Amino acid sequence: MPEIAEEPAVRRAGPRDAAAVARLLHDFNTEFDTPTPGTATLTARLESLLGQPSTVAYLAGDPAAGVALVTLRANVWYDGQVALLDELYVAPDRRDHGIGAAMIRRLIADAEEWGLAAIEINVDAGDVDAQRFYERHGFSGADPDTGERAYYYALELEAE
Amino acid sequence: MPEIAEEPAVRRAGPRDAAAVARLLHDFNTEFDTPTPGTATLTARLESLLGQPSTVAYLAGDPAAGVALVTLRANVWYDGQVALLDELYVAPDRRDHGIGAAMIRRLIADAEEWGLAAIEINVDAGDVDAQRFYERHGFSGADPDTGERAYYYALELEAE
Repeated sequence: MPEIAEEPAVRRAGPRDAAAVARLLHDFNTEFDTPTPGTATLTARLESLLGQPSTVAYLAGDPAAGVALVTLRANVWYDGQVALLDELYVAPDRRDHGIGAAMIRRLIADAEEWGLAAIEINVDAGDVDAQRFYERHGFSGADPDTGERAYYYALELEAE
Repeated sequence: MPEIAEEPAVRRAGPRDAAAVARLLHDFNTEFDTPTPGTATLTARLESLLGQPSTVAYLAGDPAAGVALVTLRANVWYDGQVALLDELYVAPDRRDHGIGAAMIRRLIADAEEWGLAAIEINVDAGDVDAQRFYERHGFSGADPDTGERAYYYALELEAE
C-alpha cells in the first residue's frame, strides 16, 4: 500500500460529474425502496443544476463511493444564505470508513467560507444513528430556546 | 357595509411591499420572543429578495394583517421546483377569520400553476393546532410509504 489515507478525499462535483452523482443518488433510493426517475433523467437534471450556484454536490472516493447534495436559498432572517442538505449517501460496502463525516466536514468548512447562516437537514424520526451522526457534527434537532423539535411536513403536488 | 367578503383578499407582494412584509415578520418574531434584526434591516433585505424569482411573499387584508413567505429551490428528484413555506403569520386581532387558510390556498394554487413538485414546511412538535391546520390543507407530516415522521435539524454557523 503506497499510503495510508487519513481522511477520505472529498471533491466538489461539477456538471461533468453529473453521471457519478446520479448513479449514487439512484443507488441511494434503490437501496431504500424509494422511487427514482433513473440515472439518465438524474444525469440530465444534474448537468444543469451543478452548473448553477444554488446546487452544490460533493463526491468522495475514487471511484466515487459517497455523495452529498445541497441546495442554497435566501432567508430573510440572515444576511447569508441557508443550505439544506438534501441527500447524503455512502455505498454500503464503503461505510464505516469516515466518508460521510469527511463530506459533512467539507460542507461545514465551505459553508463557513461562503458566509452561510445555517445548514439544515431533515432526519427520519427512527433513524437514531443519523441523528447521532449529525449531533456529533454540531447539528441540533431542538430549538435552542425552547428545546422543542420541529416536524417536516410536505404537500406533494400532482405532476401535470 | 358595502359587501360581505367571503374570502380574505390575498395578493402577491413585490419589492414595494417590503416594509409591510417586514413589519408583519418583525411582529411575528416579537410575539414569539424570537430574535429579529428589526424592520429596517428586514425591509432592505426584502426589497432585494422580493425582486427575485426564488422568494415569494403574500399579504392578506388591507391594511395587511397576514403574511406568508416562501422560498423556491431546485430538487433533483423532480422536474419542478420545491417550495418551502418559511413563515406564515396573522396578526393576533385578526385571527380566526380564515386569513391563514386563504394564504395557503393561494400558495397551493400558484404552486400548481407554476408546476412546483411540492410545498414543504417545518412545524413545531408541540404546535398541534398548526399541524391540524396544514393537514386540513393536504400536508402530511409522515412519509407516505413508511408513515414515519422526519425531524428538522440545523447547524447555525458563526456570523463573521
